[in-house]
Amino acid sequence: MAGSPSRAAGRRLQLPLLCLFLQGATAVLFAVFVRYNHKTDAALWHRGNHSNADNEFYFRYPSFQDVHAMVFVGFGFLMVFLQRYGFSSVGFTFLLAAFALQWSTLVQGFLHSFHSGHIHVGVESMINADFCAGAVLISFGAVLGKTGPAQLLLMALLEVVLFGINEFVLLHLLGVRDAGGSMTIHTFGAYFGLVLSRVLYRPQLEKSKHRQGSVYHSDLFAMIGTIFLWIFWPSFNSALTALGAGQHRTALNTYYSLAASTLGTFALSALVGEDGRLDMVHIQNAALAGGVVVGTSSEMMLTPFGALAAGFLAGTVSTLGYKFFTPILESKFKVQDTCGVHNLHGMPGVLGALLGVLVAGLATHEAYGDGLESVFPLIAEGQRSATSQAMLQLFGLFVTLMFASVGGGLGGLLLKLPFLDSPPDSQCYEDQVHWQVPGEHEDEAQRPLRVEEADTQA
Amino acid sequence: MAGSPSRAAGRRLQLPLLCLFLQGATAVLFAVFVRYNHKTDAALWHRGNHSNADNEFYFRYPSFQDVHAMVFVGFGFLMVFLQRYGFSSVGFTFLLAAFALQWSTLVQGFLHSFHSGHIHVGVESMINADFCAGAVLISFGAVLGKTGPAQLLLMALLEVVLFGINEFVLLHLLGVRDAGGSMTIHTFGAYFGLVLSRVLYRPQLEKSKHRQGSVYHSDLFAMIGTIFLWIFWPSFNSALTALGAGQHRTALNTYYSLAASTLGTFALSALVGEDGRLDMVHIQNAALAGGVVVGTSSEMMLTPFGALAAGFLAGTVSTLGYKFFTPILESKFKVQDTCGVHNLHGMPGVLGALLGVLVAGLATHEAYGDGLESVFPLIAEGQRSATSQAMLQLFGLFVTLMFASVGGGLGGLLLKLPFLDSPPDSQCYEDQVHWQVPGEHEDEAQRPLRVEEADTQA
Amino acid sequence: MAGSPSRAAGRRLQLPLLCLFLQGATAVLFAVFVRYNHKTDAALWHRGNHSNADNEFYFRYPSFQDVHAMVFVGFGFLMVFLQRYGFSSVGFTFLLAAFALQWSTLVQGFLHSFHSGHIHVGVESMINADFCAGAVLISFGAVLGKTGPAQLLLMALLEVVLFGINEFVLLHLLGVRDAGGSMTIHTFGAYFGLVLSRVLYRPQLEKSKHRQGSVYHSDLFAMIGTIFLWIFWPSFNSALTALGAGQHRTALNTYYSLAASTLGTFALSALVGEDGRLDMVHIQNAALAGGVVVGTSSEMMLTPFGALAAGFLAGTVSTLGYKFFTPILESKFKVQDTCGVHNLHGMPGVLGALLGVLVAGLATHEAYGDGLESVFPLIAEGQRSATSQAMLQLFGLFVTLMFASVGGGLGGLLLKLPFLDSPPDSQCYEDQVHWQVPGEHEDEAQRPLRVEEADTQA
Repeated sequence: MAGSPSRAAGRRLQLPLLCLFLQGATAVLFAVFVRYNHKTDAALWHRGNHSNADNEFYFRYPSFQDVHAMVFVGFGFLMVFLQRYGFSSVGFTFLLAAFALQWSTLVQGFLHSFHSGHIHVGVESMINADFCAGAVLISFGAVLGKTGPAQLLLMALLEVVLFGINEFVLLHLLGVRDAGGSMTIHTFGAYFGLVLSRVLYRPQLEKSKHRQGSVYHSDLFAMIGTIFLWIFWPSFNSALTALGAGQHRTALNTYYSLAASTLGTFALSALVGEDGRLDMVHIQNAALAGGVVVGTSSEMMLTPFGALAAGFLAGTVSTLGYKFFTPILESKFKVQDTCGVHNLHGMPGVLGALLGVLVAGLATHEAYGDGLESVFPLIAEGQRSATSQAMLQLFGLFVTLMFASVGGGLGGLLLKLPFLDSPPDSQCYEDQVHWQVPGEHEDEAQRPLRVEEADTQA
Repeated sequence: MAGSPSRAAGRRLQLPLLCLFLQGATAVLFAVFVRYNHKTDAALWHRGNHSNADNEFYFRYPSFQDVHAMVFVGFGFLMVFLQRYGFSSVGFTFLLAAFALQWSTLVQGFLHSFHSGHIHVGVESMINADFCAGAVLISFGAVLGKTGPAQLLLMALLEVVLFGINEFVLLHLLGVRDAGGSMTIHTFGAYFGLVLSRVLYRPQLEKSKHRQGSVYHSDLFAMIGTIFLWIFWPSFNSALTALGAGQHRTALNTYYSLAASTLGTFALSALVGEDGRLDMVHIQNAALAGGVVVGTSSEMMLTPFGALAAGFLAGTVSTLGYKFFTPILESKFKVQDTCGVHNLHGMPGVLGALLGVLVAGLATHEAYGDGLESVFPLIAEGQRSATSQAMLQLFGLFVTLMFASVGGGLGGLLLKLPFLDSPPDSQCYEDQVHWQVPGEHEDEAQRPLRVEEADTQA
Repeated sequence: MAGSPSRAAGRRLQLPLLCLFLQGATAVLFAVFVRYNHKTDAALWHRGNHSNADNEFYFRYPSFQDVHAMVFVGFGFLMVFLQRYGFSSVGFTFLLAAFALQWSTLVQGFLHSFHSGHIHVGVESMINADFCAGAVLISFGAVLGKTGPAQLLLMALLEVVLFGINEFVLLHLLGVRDAGGSMTIHTFGAYFGLVLSRVLYRPQLEKSKHRQGSVYHSDLFAMIGTIFLWIFWPSFNSALTALGAGQHRTALNTYYSLAASTLGTFALSALVGEDGRLDMVHIQNAALAGGVVVGTSSEMMLTPFGALAAGFLAGTVSTLGYKFFTPILESKFKVQDTCGVHNLHGMPGVLGALLGVLVAGLATHEAYGDGLESVFPLIAEGQRSATSQAMLQLFGLFVTLMFASVGGGLGGLLLKLPFLDSPPDSQCYEDQVHWQVPGEHEDEAQRPLRVEEADTQA
């Protein structure tokens, strides 16, 4: 049965048919529901007698482009560190994000901007869609190398829906603030992926252990991802905050937080490293935790010192997580977390949510002045106190953890469907399962596929 | 005669002398003709009593920077896929674009903005110059590996002039709309390069066949090019469109089109791939066809659904082109298209022009409102109907194909001039012909040049 | 004594303790002194009744992001050319710049924007801090491969202070104009690093000579750095110039200058290259000299021709410097300049300062009109003539050379402190001294450390 021609044909058709179905369904839904908003539509915009300079495009598009670079360059190359999985890392990032942003435009549109039967799109929906794609890619990091592209597309199909619902509950029902998504993006994406990875636990994964590390050049490629994520994170956190001082302050806080998390990461990496040597895994990842940890609070009056302290804490916690907690996560909790998303997005995301609780609870009319309206509108309007805002922020974190865990569990069951093509234990972290791969050196013929066929089809 | 000292000296001097001559001549023409425009000149700007926020710099410069990254990072690294031609790919991209943007500033300036004896430059001329450089690099893709740098500079010298004339005929004489250059940039650049490559046909090119593929790391470098082109394409198409809703809509349409072309490419690549495996060549290239295909229509009221459909179609057509048409192009039509520009820029460019015909023909006052003036000024002013606009768009495509073919033919004859240094058949796709190349591994001495000298000088 | 356990422990703790101390001290100073400025603070901004569109964020932040990419991607990857020092090049760039930007925020804040006991920060301070980090990285280029990370942090600690003082003397006391930092950034950073490298002269460095070159792929990584520096340099020079025509003109001049320096570099590289072949070192570096050479004058009425001429001159001088002067610098002057910063930043920086003298001396009310106020306020206000402005520009160059030389000398003495961990002569340009390094090929165990322990600890 295994290895039969029909099974091989099914494998061959799984990815193309799924892509075609998802793209076709998305296009039909776009045709029925999606329309230009009044800042994008030729007729509506000019009816308004606006100055062109007032078009939101000019306030948001540069940030959007930075976020876009983070999603496709940043996440994509960060995961290229695996020695034989570079094509899949950057390629599946490309595929997943290109699907997720379309699907998310629909899901978020139905939930957030559905008026008179239509979803209205513009630069804000582009940013929101990219944010959701970012969450999907965080989950991808947890299962990297252990899942096929059809499985990943199904994961995205489910995750985007749950992301949208969770975000709707937090931002619209609970009135939680989370501009840069410590909760909605990082915590959600990380725990969704981790629970999913738990369900897909592979006890025999050591069969692929020799492919799980990096080589010299793959680590340099990964640093491209790291640095692009790092430099553009101020734009990520500020992309959707209030115009004016709000965006300005958010970018500034994120900038300081990242700088401090970098020093914290170098310090801890050398401290816990063998013979005082630095570990590239820490630098590539933990130095970014400063962006995650101020995802909720960077739009608030965190103060520059607060940003430094938060970033430093996140960098150190994340580095210690890579060193000491990742092994335990696998051995005790049976969670195989390929990229260590628990250290980069999980713990710093939770810390960021808690920091948001603290800073929201400290909000006063004196500190924010008339700017209170744009950061905490419900407090400004007298509908809630700073303390109740803080409590709701905390409740938002629990809601997120709940949605992520249940969603990740469901996702894991979905991905275990027996007809879905999944790489065998001995062929994880290997591009040749999914790609036509050239040799590593010139004049070398294409390497014979070192996949034991019997194993693949078992 | 061959291999004589004088010939070697000539070879040594060809590139430097041509660079010095072209730079010198350009500088003299700049001295005589080029002046700051009224948004760039210290005295003129302040005479106008403008608000600084109104300076066009703030509306166009972020888009310019994205276009600039596409031209130099995107095109440059996309062509690094060749295993032994990375220095030349990224290096000659650098040289060609740096020359083309200067020369194009002059040619486009004489044709478009020559007033009272001077060309006036600012951010719009920078974008236009980079667009023209993009067309030259598309043509470069067709002849990549088979031409020396002096030949390429001469190609650029000719192509920039014809690009400028073709663009002038379309945009100014025919009143054709082509914001992102489906015709003026992609169709023109592709067919110019393809006809040129036809004239330079090398029947013995299989002597270099072993160097024509990629290696693992060169494919990852090429993905840097792909991703930067992909993320910034919304800025490319919208860089010169009308301010306000025009730029906003153009970017949004391009974003959707690219997402759909990515799914189409993955679907078709797996469908036609050996054993269902994906092919990096398709992902690197065809996924970008969504940006090309909406180059004309993305500023129009294409609708989000229209953008998805167009992008999906372009991705599939382009992938099928790489799989089935490129081999025929070489065997039947004797066109050796190194990068497959026919699949990425040629066919999608023609499709994009035809889509522009369709969408222009459907333009109504209802759909565009007062925005009609900024997209189709001649229709808005009652000088022509939507149908005649569509007919002229179609005529513009034929004009472009004509200019590109005749130009490419002339270019081929120019590059065949016997005194021009061209790599021999056995040394195509080889950096060592043009560069001092280090070894591939540390501690390795510089590799002996494996160029058979007799062959080179034959 | 050497190789004793206590010494090994000290080595292990040096970097972490220094990072922790510097980050802790910086955070305390931030807590006491650093506050949001009125464009960043929630209460202050809204008190002003401004339009959000007037927030400086929208005029400066896109330029900031480009500068940020140059500092972290550009400088970082440009130095990856060394075959076995990629982790250190990009990693220490990351560490140094993350520290320098915090420390510089304090130093520049005390000197430039200290009011009523506080430093007020916003997007301008972010740009200024990144500029200072750029100067530190230039100095890093001179000593690349020969210093440990703790040494480099101490270098930054000193250099940031001297950078701030020199900048204060030039811009505030002397009224010198230097928007893109030909003097304050490039000349200062280069000569600080060169003098420091002189003090650290290693007569036995040929022991590491075999690691001082590049390999094929490391040169391609370095080109990532080059191209990102090249494309964003117009933003670097214009990031802090006057809004409106000032920023516009500065970007345009830099764009032309870089294009011409690229052609000059290719011409000269082929001319002086063995057998007419191009040298990657020249292309990677000298093509950027066009950005350096207009750092002072690009905001002035340089004219497009002036920009081309200056860029061409800089590209040729820089290329000739790499070919002929770098060897002399080592053999005669005992300055080991790893990246050739004398050719890329030193000579072009001095040329740029002199060009600034010339263009400032030619300033007239006719040429600048009411724009004179924003370029040369002291001339516009009648406080000095163009000639005296030119003389002060020249004096500013001498002041910079003086500060850089004395500072570099002090820095060299500081870095020679015997307890500081420095790589031995035989282990320069080697990542394994500082990093846990994986092998170069898959399935290869981590390479045994080829550091002779006795030598390391000697």
